[in-house]
Amino acid sequence: MTLQDLETPAGIVDLARARANIDRTARYCREHGISWRPHVKTHKSLEMARLQIAAGASGLTVATPREAEVMARATDDLLFAHPPAHPAKIRRLAALPGELTVRVALDSLSVLRDLCRAGAAAGRTFGILVEMDAGARRTGVLQPADALRLAEAAATLPGGRFDGLALYPGIRLPRAGLAPALARLARRLESFRAALARAGLPPRIVSGGSTPTLWNSHRIPGLTEIRPGTCIYNDRDIVGMGAAAPEQLAYSVLATVVSTAVPGQAVVDAGSKAISREVLGSGDPGFGVLLDRPGVLVRAVNEEHGMLDLAATTWRPAVGEQVRIVPNHVCVSVNLQDRLWGFERPGGPLRPIALDARGRAPDPASAAQPSRASAP
Amino acid sequence: MTLQDLETPAGIVDLARARANIDRTARYCREHGISWRPHVKTHKSLEMARLQIAAGASGLTVATPREAEVMARATDDLLFAHPPAHPAKIRRLAALPGELTVRVALDSLSVLRDLCRAGAAAGRTFGILVEMDAGARRTGVLQPADALRLAEAAATLPGGRFDGLALYPGIRLPRAGLAPALARLARRLESFRAALARAGLPPRIVSGGSTPTLWNSHRIPGLTEIRPGTCIYNDRDIVGMGAAAPEQLAYSVLATVVSTAVPGQAVVDAGSKAISREVLGSGDPGFGVLLDRPGVLVRAVNEEHGMLDLAATTWRPAVGEQVRIVPNHVCVSVNLQDRLWGFERPGGPLRPIALDARGRAPDPASAAQPSRASAP
Repeated sequence: MTLQDLETPAGIVDLARARANIDRTARYCREHGISWRPHVKTHKSLEMARLQIAAGASGLTVATPREAEVMARATDDLLFAHPPAHPAKIRRLAALPGELTVRVALDSLSVLRDLCRAGAAAGRTFGILVEMDAGARRTGVLQPADALRLAEAAATLPGGRFDGLALYPGIRLPRAGLAPALARLARRLESFRAALARAGLPPRIVSGGSTPTLWNSHRIPGLTEIRPGTCIYNDRDIVGMGAAAPEQLAYSVLATVVSTAVPGQAVVDAGSKAISREVLGSGDPGFGVLLDRPGVLVRAVNEEHGMLDLAATTWRPAVGEQVRIVPNHVCVSVNLQDRLWGFERPGGPLRPIALDARGRAPDPASAAQPSRASAP
Repeated sequence: MTLQDLETPAGIVDLARARANIDRTARYCREHGISWRPHVKTHKSLEMARLQIAAGASGLTVATPREAEVMARATDDLLFAHPPAHPAKIRRLAALPGELTVRVALDSLSVLRDLCRAGAAAGRTFGILVEMDAGARRTGVLQPADALRLAEAAATLPGGRFDGLALYPGIRLPRAGLAPALARLARRLESFRAALARAGLPPRIVSGGSTPTLWNSHRIPGLTEIRPGTCIYNDRDIVGMGAAAPEQLAYSVLATVVSTAVPGQAVVDAGSKAISREVLGSGDPGFGVLLDRPGVLVRAVNEEHGMLDLAATTWRPAVGEQVRIVPNHVCVSVNLQDRLWGFERPGGPLRPIALDARGRAPDPASAAQPSRASAP
């Protein structure tokens, strides 16, 4: 099967570009002496995770129990970067293979206590990264004193071990005023590190990073690892903020023109259930652009319709013509697909890429191995 | 299992409310002598489709081959309300059970010809609804002459049969100026009907309707059927535009508070991969509200995080507390779930509701019956 035969809409991956993106990130981290722990939320794929491990990733980052269960098959070192505040999530984390190193980022005593209790009961120790707010105002304690309280509890509780700090630098650093923003972040991080060090709990790990801030990670003193996810495929948002070049776009949604009845517009069969209706962080209009005609905007979407705006082009597609759409946000678009299709070159043969970690249900492959799950 | 034990995030359905919503829509259509052909895009569920058929639906509306294959098990009368512009989609429509009535809404000669050719080869006849634009400027021919050209071809081509018109009234009729907007729509529809009647091709079916316009359908003269989908569950958008009352909200996303580290905010484990990051049609901020505290807005979402704004409430939830979120748009939120969980009363037992028609792959149950698919 080739692109021409593939039923649309379908998520497709330029495998050569994805490998180049993996290698570029690995090289950056190697050059700067930063550990690389990619977040699997973007690709949800064992195959891609194994490519990342082979390229030098020190482990993987996950955010759901399903991602943890599946990715335990690709690495021996996981970070669960989301507070597991539900008893069922804690049960699933405690049941992960005993030989797996599992760290958890959290910001509350109640989650810490429940998690450690489950760890101790299962005969395992969770590494704890105390999450500190780095300006995004999402999760993470605001004050060094709160981080210290959590670190001391993690260091004391059976089933727990204090390993360090986690932070999320926020969606975007400002392009104008980048240097002062980085300096503020560095000062804030240093105040947390100093408070912990004074109490005899210096953080061994300081885990940060995301794709928007990826290439500035070395300018944040003290970071020991970063967790970018999106950079394996990139998207319109990442290119728009300058964190990737157009030729580093490895994912798109193949779609077919289904209607040209309205002048100045072509309607395709990829809408909010294929590319999503997520607006750009910059506030710019539209929900995607064509890979080969970046001036053509997906102006609007309904569930199974995408409206291409032809105002800025002389191109007038016929019904039946195929297009490739770069979505605003690749992670949510991948998550809308049953599977992806990969190719080495656009006209070449396709092969399926399973989205093993998509969804919430327990990983069937893990469930088939109760002896591993219950091992000490 | 009850709500308290259910791992979050999870899509949940108040079954008593869903049945009441089904009955209310059925009653409205019966009272006004309009056929009711609900769109399954919202629920993707055989169980819900069968409830709709039992309540009096004349058939079902679908938009993807998967929806068509699955829903052929619930009805003998389908409308495919999306131009099937891809050869694989046409193959899948032609392979539907031979005893099934299949109508297709389309707006181009090329799709019409390809579809009829496949129908004739498979020994079946597709009923054709010519789609006319009703103001939404999405799909649909703009001029009566174009509709006539398509109707004449449908009436002539082997494998085709001209059955009537389809229209989509657009997302919302204006609240101020509703009467003039309805009058414009009625005049527009009449100009198409008249052109077809003069040529000896009066439309037997005029298919319109969506949830926002649902309760005004009887004010559009000539409509013979409507295709609302969302009204089975409703959502924040539908309530906001006055097409449903808050007590008719039958779907929500169960979520758990995972962090209260930032004052004035609680973070839950339902984000853009559970409720979506779709903005409201009205432009109002936020991505959902709490079912039981409608003043609490989901101010922002990331993939696995939802940020509840506590500015307008004295309620201060603890980490671990559960909330129910009404998403802006129910259809895309349902499509993000592996399955739903239904209950008769919020504290009562839960049972799974399969999302049989979710995804793009061929329906396994249909594939297991090649003799049906290849029947004449």
